[in-house]
Amino acid sequence: MSESSLPNAVVGQSGGPTAVINQSLVGVVETLRDSGRIGRILGARHAVRGMIEDDFVELQSIDKAKLDRIAATPSSALGSSRDKPDRAYCEKIFEVLKRRNVGYFYYIGGNDSSDTCRIISELSAKAGFDLRCYHVPKTIDNDLQKNDHTPGFGSAARFVAQAFMGDNLDNKALPGIKINVVMGRHAGFLTAASLLARQRQGDGPHLIYVPETSFDIDQFLGQVDGAMKKYGRCLIAVSEGIHDKDGTPMAVKLAEQSKGEIERDSHGNVQLSGTGALGDFLSELIKTRLNAKRVRADTFGYLQRSFVGCVSPSDAVEAREVGRMAARLSLEGGEGSGSVAIQRVSSRPYQVEYKRIELSDVAAKTKVMDASHLVNGCDVAESFREYLEGIVGELPVVEQF
Amino acid sequence: MSESSLPNAVVGQSGGPTAVINQSLVGVVETLRDSGRIGRILGARHAVRGMIEDDFVELQSIDKAKLDRIAATPSSALGSSRDKPDRAYCEKIFEVLKRRNVGYFYYIGGNDSSDTCRIISELSAKAGFDLRCYHVPKTIDNDLQKNDHTPGFGSAARFVAQAFMGDNLDNKALPGIKINVVMGRHAGFLTAASLLARQRQGDGPHLIYVPETSFDIDQFLGQVDGAMKKYGRCLIAVSEGIHDKDGTPMAVKLAEQSKGEIERDSHGNVQLSGTGALGDFLSELIKTRLNAKRVRADTFGYLQRSFVGCVSPSDAVEAREVGRMAARLSLEGGEGSGSVAIQRVSSRPYQVEYKRIELSDVAAKTKVMDASHLVNGCDVAESFREYLEGIVGELPVVEQF
Repeated sequence: MSESSLPNAVVGQSGGPTAVINQSLVGVVETLRDSGRIGRILGARHAVRGMIEDDFVELQSIDKAKLDRIAATPSSALGSSRDKPDRAYCEKIFEVLKRRNVGYFYYIGGNDSSDTCRIISELSAKAGFDLRCYHVPKTIDNDLQKNDHTPGFGSAARFVAQAFMGDNLDNKALPGIKINVVMGRHAGFLTAASLLARQRQGDGPHLIYVPETSFDIDQFLGQVDGAMKKYGRCLIAVSEGIHDKDGTPMAVKLAEQSKGEIERDSHGNVQLSGTGALGDFLSELIKTRLNAKRVRADTFGYLQRSFVGCVSPSDAVEAREVGRMAARLSLEGGEGSGSVAIQRVSSRPYQVEYKRIELSDVAAKTKVMDASHLVNGCDVAESFREYLEGIVGELPVVEQF
Repeated sequence: MSESSLPNAVVGQSGGPTAVINQSLVGVVETLRDSGRIGRILGARHAVRGMIEDDFVELQSIDKAKLDRIAATPSSALGSSRDKPDRAYCEKIFEVLKRRNVGYFYYIGGNDSSDTCRIISELSAKAGFDLRCYHVPKTIDNDLQKNDHTPGFGSAARFVAQAFMGDNLDNKALPGIKINVVMGRHAGFLTAASLLARQRQGDGPHLIYVPETSFDIDQFLGQVDGAMKKYGRCLIAVSEGIHDKDGTPMAVKLAEQSKGEIERDSHGNVQLSGTGALGDFLSELIKTRLNAKRVRADTFGYLQRSFVGCVSPSDAVEAREVGRMAARLSLEGGEGSGSVAIQRVSSRPYQVEYKRIELSDVAAKTKVMDASHLVNGCDVAESFREYLEGIVGELPVVEQF
């Protein structure tokens, strides 16, 4: 078979970048190239947008050294997009894929991306066009169903852990009340990773609030007051997605109070990140209601997903491997389309394996923290530490007098 | 001389923590201990507060392995304080030092701390009490006179550089306007370190605002608009201390507008850190006035001074060495009290030396960026890169298509 008659492949990166999403991209590319069964490997610029606009980067000719450097670079090297393709959008994508003689399609992203894969896969089946669609998991939120955890989460969790380790020491040196707002709209996994900063009696975070339980202002203030009495200081981890008992995010209530205008993305999600408003609101609340003096709030923002130089070693390996696995599974054929999931074999020692799952297993579904890991609506159980250890990797050693 | 008749030493850590301030502490302790000329080495808990409250940690008996782990740990292991001792406060400290038979006093901190050293040194001279007072430089703001740069700055600058490297890639993947607020009340060195993230044509930060030049809202908006037209995105570095042409910090103007209440510390400084207000204000301004869609702001906050696992190698070495040098100089006697300054021998290759300077050279004085490094009120000159390189150390490699 001459090269020009080989089917082509398209790969894209969707949603929020992570520190290791390029590992997955390179995992797909190197496996496809080594197979000798793919013509051109086309990287879609800015995800689905590049697909409908026919904006691709040729990836098959990039040398291995450069690919390895790309893999080690955070954020999405191809660019990303927040577009949520509906059926009509997917039909346009499918037309481009057909015209480009694309037989293999890989989409690296979260649950919305797997849904895009699912729709395109259905369109191709209906059209009798031979297209294998593979979703490659990625999300710092760690909220994909059927995955023990997701690539990107480990490095973001490592950032959160290292940030809290340092901030615990900072808060100990200059005691006061400190709030750190962590990403996580519906799932509290990333916020809960702050638990790893607790290494000695009295270490913070002393309180952890996740979106899995509803947030009550009076209870919160009582808990902060209690921690201050116990520790003489209080370090607090808060998910950006905390909400009241009716499910209204605090950030939305806040936005309604302050300016009556709320920014939503194409997925209907309210803007939570890229603003310090929630942290400042909680900070003001504590100052006013508890008459507390030194109250500070930091919002980790985009640092937690793109900071250069804070990668979990297992996360980097696993992100590469899910990319390779998706490419291998698609080439082997058989089941057609699908997704790849990380499964845990054991925690101590940490060991995982990779498994094919159906697109419908992850598409547009969300996983949240198990209730067994949550304590009194204001803390995370020590049992969660075992889950995190292997994912995050060994942390730097800190010492105290 | 029996050990009990040897003079004792007191060491304290003041002001905001840094990633390497414990290196300086350990540098002092190990040098004093190795000299065999000091009785007890007392670490003051929470700086001057521990001194007047007679709250000390015995440091002479801590083993080398633990000291090395302490040295590698960010934040102030002894605890810090924001108290600004006046003369009466210093007299109290001096009484404790006399009673404790302290012949050597070391204070690790910024310009306020060197002023405390100066006052205590004067009191002891006046009283005819033999006390050597050494200031050991530390500040992420890099604003001490007669110092090429200060311990703590290199690691904080490294954090800022790595954060901007990642955020530049994040902003490239999902184009929009992104503001990052960096610490720095009067001096823009730390914000200017974001320059290191620019490694290729088109890389951000595209605009850099420091407190050395006044900030004008209309000019700012015009510059953001210009950058958007040129790059299709805009990454902005802003010092928390930016101010209008009358010298009023934007953060103060903002606080006056929103709640009419401004928090000041004991040094009279307005609270700038620990809130996202400035970033959110600029973000809203751009959204409203430029009708821009995707505008986000992150405030790096305390992460930039205490994050675990982001240390400049030269900063760690130099912070240790200024501590050792202060101890050596004090033991050699001769000039009595003083401070230690890092002097640059050469930039390429990077080489420094350490020098004794007078307390009055640094006490209560502030250094700011040289005008030659500033461009059009919205950028930092490439010439500043050479200054930063050795201080920050080699950065991780990132790659782009």
